[in-house]
Amino acid sequence: MRRMSNGEILARLRTIVGDAHVISDATTATYATDWRKRYFGRPVAVVKPANTAEVAAVLKLCIETRTTIVPQGGNTGLCGGATPDPSGRQLMVNLSRMNRIRAIDAVNNAMTVEAGCVLATLQQAADQAKRLFPLRLAAEGSCQIGGNLSTNAGGVQVLRYGNTRDLVLGLEVVLPNGSVWDGLRGLRKDNTGYDLKHLFIGAEGTLGIITAAVLKLFPKPCAQATAVVALDTPRAALRLLEHLQSRCGDRLTAFELFSAICVELVHKHFDVAAPFSTAYPQYALIELSDTQPGGGVNTLLESVLEAALESGIALDAVVATSGTQAKQLWQLREHISEAQAAEGPNIKHDIALPISRIGDFIERTDAKLAGAFKGVRMVTFGHLGDGNLHYNVAHPEGGDPAVFIARTAEVNRAVHDSVTEFGGSISAEHGIGQYKRDELLRYKAPVEMELMRTVKRALDPLGIMNPGKVLGKLDS
Amino acid sequence: MRRMSNGEILARLRTIVGDAHVISDATTATYATDWRKRYFGRPVAVVKPANTAEVAAVLKLCIETRTTIVPQGGNTGLCGGATPDPSGRQLMVNLSRMNRIRAIDAVNNAMTVEAGCVLATLQQAADQAKRLFPLRLAAEGSCQIGGNLSTNAGGVQVLRYGNTRDLVLGLEVVLPNGSVWDGLRGLRKDNTGYDLKHLFIGAEGTLGIITAAVLKLFPKPCAQATAVVALDTPRAALRLLEHLQSRCGDRLTAFELFSAICVELVHKHFDVAAPFSTAYPQYALIELSDTQPGGGVNTLLESVLEAALESGIALDAVVATSGTQAKQLWQLREHISEAQAAEGPNIKHDIALPISRIGDFIERTDAKLAGAFKGVRMVTFGHLGDGNLHYNVAHPEGGDPAVFIARTAEVNRAVHDSVTEFGGSISAEHGIGQYKRDELLRYKAPVEMELMRTVKRALDPLGIMNPGKVLGKLDS
Repeated sequence: MRRMSNGEILARLRTIVGDAHVISDATTATYATDWRKRYFGRPVAVVKPANTAEVAAVLKLCIETRTTIVPQGGNTGLCGGATPDPSGRQLMVNLSRMNRIRAIDAVNNAMTVEAGCVLATLQQAADQAKRLFPLRLAAEGSCQIGGNLSTNAGGVQVLRYGNTRDLVLGLEVVLPNGSVWDGLRGLRKDNTGYDLKHLFIGAEGTLGIITAAVLKLFPKPCAQATAVVALDTPRAALRLLEHLQSRCGDRLTAFELFSAICVELVHKHFDVAAPFSTAYPQYALIELSDTQPGGGVNTLLESVLEAALESGIALDAVVATSGTQAKQLWQLREHISEAQAAEGPNIKHDIALPISRIGDFIERTDAKLAGAFKGVRMVTFGHLGDGNLHYNVAHPEGGDPAVFIARTAEVNRAVHDSVTEFGGSISAEHGIGQYKRDELLRYKAPVEMELMRTVKRALDPLGIMNPGKVLGKLDS
Repeated sequence: MRRMSNGEILARLRTIVGDAHVISDATTATYATDWRKRYFGRPVAVVKPANTAEVAAVLKLCIETRTTIVPQGGNTGLCGGATPDPSGRQLMVNLSRMNRIRAIDAVNNAMTVEAGCVLATLQQAADQAKRLFPLRLAAEGSCQIGGNLSTNAGGVQVLRYGNTRDLVLGLEVVLPNGSVWDGLRGLRKDNTGYDLKHLFIGAEGTLGIITAAVLKLFPKPCAQATAVVALDTPRAALRLLEHLQSRCGDRLTAFELFSAICVELVHKHFDVAAPFSTAYPQYALIELSDTQPGGGVNTLLESVLEAALESGIALDAVVATSGTQAKQLWQLREHISEAQAAEGPNIKHDIALPISRIGDFIERTDAKLAGAFKGVRMVTFGHLGDGNLHYNVAHPEGGDPAVFIARTAEVNRAVHDSVTEFGGSISAEHGIGQYKRDELLRYKAPVEMELMRTVKRALDPLGIMNPGKVLGKLDS
């Protein structure tokens, strides 16, 4: 190890990536502030390498000088995983310049892409190759695939296509010792030793820097059917889900649940058409997709929903008769987050549960919160098909939001205790970062925490990669 | 560490699992011989624990006495991964008594099972719950799920449902330090730290003993369509595959390729009906499945194959008109391995390639082998949809098999060099064990080997778990 001044480190970085790609002025603040504006870091610099070799050279310099690294993609994460600490000593490695699609192999249903590619760009590239890259989420216009991989992003098509982890065939990673692991294989089967890619996916940059990936492509569906169904309870939604899965199989690409209050908030803050003339307690948005053209998938959805209405599982249903109407139905679901924000701050929980237990969980936890925090409003919605709820708690109507937000720790405790009782996860799709680090320590079994620390210590003995994220201090 | 005599170790094992479940007589030879009868080990004993706590107690004893462990399931592996060395010092831990299905949660599409459950039992249990557990392979009547998990088994439905790895939601593992990691979560989304389950899946028992798992269940298809298509070349098969994927999407559950010689051998050694009145160079067996009852899937397959015949991709096609006929078509494919065995020994390669490169690979490698080994017969078949070929080389007709088999190393070199040139894998679905350990060392990049050794050393610093398998010596 060589002690170096910040000035010396910057000079060395400039020789690696070029003067223009080392940022150390006041504009670093944009990079060092997270998307939700909860965390405000201060890095020694933001460096933007152009290729894998430059990333490796930067890493070697960091090893030499014991400079810790915070990798960053599109900076759309919700847990502060890509934000440095305020020490002024951490180096941010921003991957945005590594944005080439290296190859598309349509016959192999695979594309090789660099970490800095924006997700929407990849969706379009797949589309042009007459394929589908199915990762779809709110930030797709600016998030980068390297960040999606590092956080194992979820989104609205997990039900059918899985999480980001499930969309990967191979990876290229710059390791914490500065070497490059070329695991860019485009293979569906490969049992030659440990599956290392899954270690780096979802590790939030704590085990290395993902620089490229081979992603799976899928046949492109050419027919879609969309419906909103009115329901009495989340339990009825579970029965509808089971009914749809048994009849429609893989055609079912979305099953989103949202409650009456979500729809009320959307109507209060946005001009979105109401699906029914009357309000119902719960709603499900359903989408079927098929590679078979024509109206088959619409006929199927209609017949399945008719059966659900007859058997009393569903209270009412509307099937979109055009693409425009389908979009309108989706707007109901897609505007919930913004409508909530317009209504004021709320305490969010990104949780997952065994799907079969969601009805009990909501009932029991709603009652617990109603008892402990008088008048709170439950803005519950989410990807029911994956067991993923955005279980958000808003202040009582007419009450002071600030007073309620001050009780965040208490609310989190009540919700996460309940999640744990029901065998669930306190972070379904947004990861841990710095935001949920202490919660992880509280709820994860010591054996599992220690296993994760063992892996971290082995791969990154110097603690160069994104220290303090996910696992927190290694000696805790 | 305490040095203990074998007698002392056996006595301690008996107190853990009971006298009846420690085998140290001559019958250990059955356990210590692999399925292909290539490896003949000699263990200090075979121990059969009844539950996870007993496995953990056995492991702690092994740590105390520095006894190394070879875990074993149904002993159907093809690479000697579950066979001990001949030292008389290794302990075999056979999981067959841990064969309970702990829970089936149909609404959550999940079942929790112990490692010693036989695969066919799990298929039936899923079926009774009106679900599908899609792992399907030749040894399903005797292989155990713990072995399937440890080798990340493949089989005939990978195209649609993925490898064993993709069918897992959670794991329970006894770690090399004797502690139990309870990762038995039944969640579709969980981003709370590193995904540890993928480390143990496919690690062939070198990182711990998998004792239980939460497995995914799927909607049960109720309609199937099966066809055999005659083709000119593997390249034509690729075009047909692409055509089927774009039209049929997820309905395509099998796409198996086999050459004329495979069919000749089947007809020579078995009484199986010929699909066509004339012979063709290549054949594809295709299966579509659907959750929609009725003949829709048959109509679809017929129309898609009609288009393939018209455009000249396919030379001829027969679609099964009954379940019996479908079974007959499958027999053509299923009897290839046995027909080959009846014809005499051959040199097998379980390889995977980027699907798009299979045509070039076969052409180039066939030519290379024909040049170097006059008159050899290429018995090539496999799961084309996954890029997985069983690329087997048989002795020249009329020649002496023994003379040819003596050249195995040369043949392997030619084939595996070619696989590597084409970006493929030298072990698609059978793993490494001891059989391919040296090949792995030859073909895997040093960075990746070292990364695997780093993980192994970190999790198993004493080298207790299945030493010598997969990675070979750790200091190599």
